[in-house]
Amino acid sequence: MDTRKKSNSVEKETVSVNRVAIIGASGYGGLQLVRLLSEHPFFKITFLGGYRSAGRHWNEIAPFLPLDHNPVIEEIDPIQISQRADYALLSLPNGMASQIVPKLLEKNIRVLDLSADYRFHSLDQWKQVYFNESNSFTRNDKELCLEAVYGLTEWNLSKISTARLVSCPGCYPTASLLSILPFLKQGMIDNQGVIIDAKSGTSGGGRMPKENLLNSELSEAISAYSVIGHRHTSEIENIASEIAGKEIQIQFTPHLVPMVRGILSTTYARLRDPGFTAEDCKTVLETFYKDQLSIEVLPVGVYPSTKWVRQTNKAIISVQVDIRTGRLVLISVIDNLIKGQAGQAIQNLNLMASIPKEEGLPLVPYYP
Amino acid sequence: MDTRKKSNSVEKETVSVNRVAIIGASGYGGLQLVRLLSEHPFFKITFLGGYRSAGRHWNEIAPFLPLDHNPVIEEIDPIQISQRADYALLSLPNGMASQIVPKLLEKNIRVLDLSADYRFHSLDQWKQVYFNESNSFTRNDKELCLEAVYGLTEWNLSKISTARLVSCPGCYPTASLLSILPFLKQGMIDNQGVIIDAKSGTSGGGRMPKENLLNSELSEAISAYSVIGHRHTSEIENIASEIAGKEIQIQFTPHLVPMVRGILSTTYARLRDPGFTAEDCKTVLETFYKDQLSIEVLPVGVYPSTKWVRQTNKAIISVQVDIRTGRLVLISVIDNLIKGQAGQAIQNLNLMASIPKEEGLPLVPYYP
Amino acid sequence: MDTRKKSNSVEKETVSVNRVAIIGASGYGGLQLVRLLSEHPFFKITFLGGYRSAGRHWNEIAPFLPLDHNPVIEEIDPIQISQRADYALLSLPNGMASQIVPKLLEKNIRVLDLSADYRFHSLDQWKQVYFNESNSFTRNDKELCLEAVYGLTEWNLSKISTARLVSCPGCYPTASLLSILPFLKQGMIDNQGVIIDAKSGTSGGGRMPKENLLNSELSEAISAYSVIGHRHTSEIENIASEIAGKEIQIQFTPHLVPMVRGILSTTYARLRDPGFTAEDCKTVLETFYKDQLSIEVLPVGVYPSTKWVRQTNKAIISVQVDIRTGRLVLISVIDNLIKGQAGQAIQNLNLMASIPKEEGLPLVPYYP
Amino acid sequence: MDTRKKSNSVEKETVSVNRVAIIGASGYGGLQLVRLLSEHPFFKITFLGGYRSAGRHWNEIAPFLPLDHNPVIEEIDPIQISQRADYALLSLPNGMASQIVPKLLEKNIRVLDLSADYRFHSLDQWKQVYFNESNSFTRNDKELCLEAVYGLTEWNLSKISTARLVSCPGCYPTASLLSILPFLKQGMIDNQGVIIDAKSGTSGGGRMPKENLLNSELSEAISAYSVIGHRHTSEIENIASEIAGKEIQIQFTPHLVPMVRGILSTTYARLRDPGFTAEDCKTVLETFYKDQLSIEVLPVGVYPSTKWVRQTNKAIISVQVDIRTGRLVLISVIDNLIKGQAGQAIQNLNLMASIPKEEGLPLVPYYP
Repeated sequence: MDTRKKSNSVEKETVSVNRVAIIGASGYGGLQLVRLLSEHPFFKITFLGGYRSAGRHWNEIAPFLPLDHNPVIEEIDPIQISQRADYALLSLPNGMASQIVPKLLEKNIRVLDLSADYRFHSLDQWKQVYFNESNSFTRNDKELCLEAVYGLTEWNLSKISTARLVSCPGCYPTASLLSILPFLKQGMIDNQGVIIDAKSGTSGGGRMPKENLLNSELSEAISAYSVIGHRHTSEIENIASEIAGKEIQIQFTPHLVPMVRGILSTTYARLRDPGFTAEDCKTVLETFYKDQLSIEVLPVGVYPSTKWVRQTNKAIISVQVDIRTGRLVLISVIDNLIKGQAGQAIQNLNLMASIPKEEGLPLVPYYP
Repeated sequence: MDTRKKSNSVEKETVSVNRVAIIGASGYGGLQLVRLLSEHPFFKITFLGGYRSAGRHWNEIAPFLPLDHNPVIEEIDPIQISQRADYALLSLPNGMASQIVPKLLEKNIRVLDLSADYRFHSLDQWKQVYFNESNSFTRNDKELCLEAVYGLTEWNLSKISTARLVSCPGCYPTASLLSILPFLKQGMIDNQGVIIDAKSGTSGGGRMPKENLLNSELSEAISAYSVIGHRHTSEIENIASEIAGKEIQIQFTPHLVPMVRGILSTTYARLRDPGFTAEDCKTVLETFYKDQLSIEVLPVGVYPSTKWVRQTNKAIISVQVDIRTGRLVLISVIDNLIKGQAGQAIQNLNLMASIPKEEGLPLVPYYP
Repeated sequence: MDTRKKSNSVEKETVSVNRVAIIGASGYGGLQLVRLLSEHPFFKITFLGGYRSAGRHWNEIAPFLPLDHNPVIEEIDPIQISQRADYALLSLPNGMASQIVPKLLEKNIRVLDLSADYRFHSLDQWKQVYFNESNSFTRNDKELCLEAVYGLTEWNLSKISTARLVSCPGCYPTASLLSILPFLKQGMIDNQGVIIDAKSGTSGGGRMPKENLLNSELSEAISAYSVIGHRHTSEIENIASEIAGKEIQIQFTPHLVPMVRGILSTTYARLRDPGFTAEDCKTVLETFYKDQLSIEVLPVGVYPSTKWVRQTNKAIISVQVDIRTGRLVLISVIDNLIKGQAGQAIQNLNLMASIPKEEGLPLVPYYP
Repeated sequence: MDTRKKSNSVEKETVSVNRVAIIGASGYGGLQLVRLLSEHPFFKITFLGGYRSAGRHWNEIAPFLPLDHNPVIEEIDPIQISQRADYALLSLPNGMASQIVPKLLEKNIRVLDLSADYRFHSLDQWKQVYFNESNSFTRNDKELCLEAVYGLTEWNLSKISTARLVSCPGCYPTASLLSILPFLKQGMIDNQGVIIDAKSGTSGGGRMPKENLLNSELSEAISAYSVIGHRHTSEIENIASEIAGKEIQIQFTPHLVPMVRGILSTTYARLRDPGFTAEDCKTVLETFYKDQLSIEVLPVGVYPSTKWVRQTNKAIISVQVDIRTGRLVLISVIDNLIKGQAGQAIQNLNLMASIPKEEGLPLVPYYP
């Protein structure tokens, strides 16, 4: 494939630019990272690592995203990485990240982990929720769990800036928390009775072939899964409780929708003060997010489609109040692979490198 | 198109068979009625009427469903209909049915109306909920509203059998009520706080071209609409309250999913007695529906896809209990055009004609 | 799952009914066979066999198609099969069928094979075209290759009726041959220069998980594959040449379309006599298929969608002539899993059992 | 909607930037123009005009693409346009552009027309091919038809640079011509017998609601249309003949595929010299396009999906040779709304303004 013209380059010559390693590059999350960082003005990808794809040439795995010199995906070797990168972005299966993160930090690499390994401050809770993974991977990094900064960008700006280890949120938590947190922070809703009914495209299920992710199974079909006890429930409850300053209980139900990208989260909560109107609630959201380019609050009565944020780092939120029932209804949409995964990671990376946090991130969709 | 071989016939010779008029045949609901009744052993279609399509040949409108002799769709003339049919199935826009139903009943035609015109016992409530329609169509049929039998088949068997006028339920109410009614009837859940988060395919939006129903707009997109105040809310609340014997308040949110057929309804309610398990709740459903061939209750932990009921008259229900939150979660799926519309109408028609009520109705899907 | 109501039964009591074994029941082809035969009035399924799924309960694999008594899928044991069935339908991977067919025939079971193993009269050609399979499976059944009857139903009625072994055609060959054969038979088109540009849904790729069949890869994407040398080319050429009475060369290109079911085949051929009109050509098709309920010829200028035949055993053909270029253009559509696979197998099974050949087969779609 | 944060602006302050009017902004073509130009570093949109949408606020029509100050779409007034813009991009229905182009040229506006009005050098041919339009719109602009430069960017670089009026190609012609022209130019293929079998997503049908473009009609369906005599046939033949230096006859068949964006064109032609290999043919393509960033030639045996170019200005071409049949098979993919419409228009606009021609155009997709 030598003869192909490339506009992307793994190793740019510029010296002032930050060097980034992407580990787990061939999954859907990794693909987004490569796509976004290959055009980012302030970063260069200097290391591409993988576990299943190690040894293969990049352009075979991603012919739609050819890179200059068609690099080989390398084994995940912390020493190599530390010599060639300043930052490491890990897009690995749960459990696997924890085996390499301590080594990278030792070598003074700053790490952004896209897995669930450092999303809980308590390693014990992680072992409980990610039970199977805890049996496959031995972990003794309790302190790192405590140290890791939860990378919900808009809610943790300063801590992220200086963090050694940022744990990037799950896709469902991102979509759900961004809409509900302002109301929890303001103490406007009941602790109990919050219901999050979430709908996701199939790319959230990853690129590893599974029967239930086949087009033949999914087309013309919507279904619920993990109806009680989806792992993201704990993650959402932890952050919600932290922000609310008291324990918040969430009923969370995910659904699989016949589309590739996008999450739509519909959240129901009871207002403490029945006098609040939808316009009031919109004002709350706008106030919280007034300087946040990645977050848009819609006029009351306008409801977003996931298509409005597809392939962007935007979260769009619409709020409605049902005065009949005294209930708040929040609709929020994100692209699960960008704002829900790789895009938010790069927002955090920008913060860590003191770069404007939306740099290199698409904010406007190509419609339709 | 004379030369085409047909296996369907509008006018069969058999005399013992019941004669049926289908009014509004060219919409998606009408198409299902023609499809199902053209192969039904105990009915023959003797009149095809339409308002927009009147004067056109059937096989031009539905080349995929050719009928013998390629009949012309006729003007909606109650006299003609009464001379040629015993039953009339009306698949007309809301408001329009009310203009013809009284005339058909006068002529002793038994009527099944698929619109919303007779779903409320109170004409005043109808005028409030269907405000625009009430401005376009004058109605003085308060008594008919009272008389009409709500055609939620499994819950109204005997009344439907003898009814002159059956008002067939909306698609969302069918999907939602079938799962929640047993628990309301048993008094097992709170009156307040019931949340129904429903997801529908696009055929529910009809065959009339609209921008928001274009493939280009809908593909790879999910969105919420009518977030508070969707018209089906009142219909669901009325029936729910009637069965519960007390006022039930519903929070109902519909979503548009990029698929053609199917509704998945996710219902959340608080259990009065926290001791009930998912198995207990499954037993409640099974007990209520034990003789109902169109309703299937899944084992606890198995969740249906809309594809499991596509192009059938089946409703599949799965129940789960979250002991952490004390909440019941119900997942129910139907094909919105069959069990949610034309199929349920034919179930009712079968009952009215003293035929086994699943006769002529598909119950097993073609998967995938 | 004992408590579920079932309308299907693996072991019906009726004695006059033919007993059928389905081998390879859990793939998409097998699922269609079970679906269709479980409601067929003249057959009962008495054996369900599988290689990957052996030992599992049917209702776990296909909860959307529950069977009475939830049978266990059995090991493929020719002795067991011969004791319990009169006919065996094999829906196995290429190569594997050849290992069991001889044993079944020995036991006087009549066999319908849905794989490619007996589609060529020459075993040598099979070994060349199915090279990898020929390395995995040893075959010495040259005579069976010669004996096997090619089950393109409408073109081989009498031979199929009396055959011991029917080799059911591939999905692409079915769609393509049905439209072109009448013109080859009549000698109306050039031997060379026939181009078949075919488009298939994803269920043709099977139920075994593969990356390229994931919804995330396929949605919003069309691509060509096996651009020269697709294995169905030889199958099409063989039959085309046989019917034409001289060697016919085909340029065949398959494409993968983001839908589940359906093949649309666009065929281009040069007319020998430039005087033929589209109406003439339509008459040719109608004459050939005048008694064939499974085949419909459209009026000139009306072109079918795959949706018009979805989940039916119909093939719909439309013919057009471009007088500017002297070329015939044929559009044909089938459901790849029914007329292109399981439905056509059952047509053949009906013929073998002296039952009307469309018995138990759906011919009218549910639209949309 | 005043409170929304915007990153796009209709009226930027920079003076050195070229001023552009977009006429017909609310259709899918217009939306892409606005999307691309609102972020283009060297152009500012100074006029948004429309015929159906005139008087409406932009952000109501395109809430997913909000513009600063939420401009009102204006009536199409040549005087206004000439005062406020240097270039006008017209995305209007066929026929309508011809009514305004002469007036704009008179005012010294340079025009890029995205309709078919100036794609033929002969007005008479246009009147024949666009017969209905010629009855609705009176045209006396024979000279402009002769003057207009056909904007197939890579084949007309210098003429486009200096043109007053550029007529941008149709989507099908762009996809088809880019792959076949190098071989016609080299005289490598037969004049006759070229077959183009093209497959398009639904956005090519526009945003105006039509029954056949509804999701319910299109999902799970592929169909052919305009099987002989599609209007793009003449356009393709004209350019093909011009480049070949002799008359070329094309058999062109378009198909509608259940996806939104993308065209895949499969082209069949007979090689004059049977000795040419696929590698030879790949070299021909590479030689022609070696400096063209928007065109990528794939290694032999790798075939592109439309998804590989979605939302980019790329055309990807793969060539294969069937030595058995002596035939060349070309697969080319584009995004019909970008390279097939708005993106190519902007390439041309860049050329006219002496800007690098890929400036402001996306070349790498977001996969999947």
